[in-house]
Amino acid sequence: MNIQEIIIKKRDKGELTKEEIKYFINEYTNGNITDYHAAALIMAIYLNGMTEEETTNITLAMAASGDVMDLSDISENIVDKHSTGGVGDKITLVLMPIIASLGIPVVKMSGRGLGFTGGTADKLESIPGYRIWLDIDEIKENVKNIGISLASQTGDLAPADKKIYALRDAIGCVDNIPLIASSIMSKKIASGANKIVLEVMVGSGAFMQTVEEATKLCNQMISIGKLAGKDVVCVLTNMNEPLGINVGNSLEVIEATECLKGNISNDVKEVVCTLGSYMLEMAGFGADTETNKRKIEEQIYNRKSLREMERAS
Amino acid sequence: MNIQEIIIKKRDKGELTKEEIKYFINEYTNGNITDYHAAALIMAIYLNGMTEEETTNITLAMAASGDVMDLSDISENIVDKHSTGGVGDKITLVLMPIIASLGIPVVKMSGRGLGFTGGTADKLESIPGYRIWLDIDEIKENVKNIGISLASQTGDLAPADKKIYALRDAIGCVDNIPLIASSIMSKKIASGANKIVLEVMVGSGAFMQTVEEATKLCNQMISIGKLAGKDVVCVLTNMNEPLGINVGNSLEVIEATECLKGNISNDVKEVVCTLGSYMLEMAGFGADTETNKRKIEEQIYNRKSLREMERAS
Repeated sequence: MNIQEIIIKKRDKGELTKEEIKYFINEYTNGNITDYHAAALIMAIYLNGMTEEETTNITLAMAASGDVMDLSDISENIVDKHSTGGVGDKITLVLMPIIASLGIPVVKMSGRGLGFTGGTADKLESIPGYRIWLDIDEIKENVKNIGISLASQTGDLAPADKKIYALRDAIGCVDNIPLIASSIMSKKIASGANKIVLEVMVGSGAFMQTVEEATKLCNQMISIGKLAGKDVVCVLTNMNEPLGINVGNSLEVIEATECLKGNISNDVKEVVCTLGSYMLEMAGFGADTETNKRKIEEQIYNRKSLREMERAS
Repeated sequence: MNIQEIIIKKRDKGELTKEEIKYFINEYTNGNITDYHAAALIMAIYLNGMTEEETTNITLAMAASGDVMDLSDISENIVDKHSTGGVGDKITLVLMPIIASLGIPVVKMSGRGLGFTGGTADKLESIPGYRIWLDIDEIKENVKNIGISLASQTGDLAPADKKIYALRDAIGCVDNIPLIASSIMSKKIASGANKIVLEVMVGSGAFMQTVEEATKLCNQMISIGKLAGKDVVCVLTNMNEPLGINVGNSLEVIEATECLKGNISNDVKEVVCTLGSYMLEMAGFGADTETNKRKIEEQIYNRKSLREMERAS
């Protein structure tokens, strides 16, 4: 197998085999394939596309390229939540403490901001003294002791994705649905969750500008999930104006705290309740969306989740 | 101007401006643009194509990236000949001495073999003691004293083409007509000829496998020539079996010498007479192809051109 043949195959609109994809991901990650070979292949993928099977195989290969978290000793059902991100998006900071306050273990590893959207890791770091770099033992310890861990992605999670993302960014190949889907899903799979609620934001303040694109991305991620044996739910949310009332790392942390005291704007509440209801369903709380939404709403106003947030920070 | 914007423009099927192309060629040649940026752009060009104007602009930028020979002190009309190459192709070794024997100054800079086809530079080097690396003063000296110089391309001729060709080779982007046309023409323009006979070989022993492809390549090169102010004639020749009777560097040199003694196979004679007749026309011998062909043929059998070959070597 050699990289030139793989590039030519994709250049000519061929479908890459699982072995070819694994070879590329592994050899590129360990430095045996050069950046210019990878750049040519990524551009060919960008322009000629990938089938669902290719997208799944690239995802699984990237997920397996570094540490794969085993969280099965915490719970059989680890429910994760991921958002493609938007302006003013503080949902994780509000939603995860609520989920934890309902007795569901929360392990959330967040990333940095991408482009004009903020990242939860940056927001957490704006809390004085908050350590976002935890190793897997510290994460498990937190969940055992306080039911929640909000941290940054560890350094060894899906290193192939990190390297490929940096290259895509440099060569103008970020906005490609199969590549976005595989990037998100590789990190989710490597972080050990088996049930994942994905939020895809749509609109002028998000990467996906139209409902059509966002739906494509959702379908790709659901299909990867199926082929990878993970339960995946996708929710589209509106990002034509900032979520909530504040934009900026520390301002959003303050707003999130206010939300958990009951001072929550309607748009944030709607997203928190919707995503939360699916997380509850996945955690075994039943499929009645309205009941689940009410449970989430109760936790906002009874301030129980505020305590979870304080414990986490 | 930045390379990422240029890549994205071509990725989205845009037409690059002259300035954008110049910027890419110059900055890539002097190392300010990385190989992975160039690889992404070349793949985007391969898949999305280039207009005739873009192809001409990339050619002129590559031609200007190093030394540009000024041969005007030798003659106002420098007639050059280039072949895309095939198996057993010893035409240069036979044709150029014939042209010189007719009093037309011959400056021919040849390249190495490409893929499975041999290169004239390699063939010349199989002559014991033959120095193919001449500087421009030595080349001019030879033409002045003996009427002919057969040498290798100098190191500073179209360095951008050398760098881009090596990259295309590595990333599987060699067989692309606008890129082939610009590569050939950039070297021809930099080598100082203003009248060029181009031979495009077609068939199983050549890079162009079909007449359709070969015609496209011819049209591209003629159109570049027009926009660059050069007279260009293109001739398609059959390469479904090796030219002549021998294949291999020194064997082909021996066969070429035999040709100039009159022991010439019909296929070699046909190509030599056809290309030669166009070179004579360009050198001012009139447009009557049959008369020109007869003149070339005479020089084969009167052994005058054999002396030219001996002088050149």
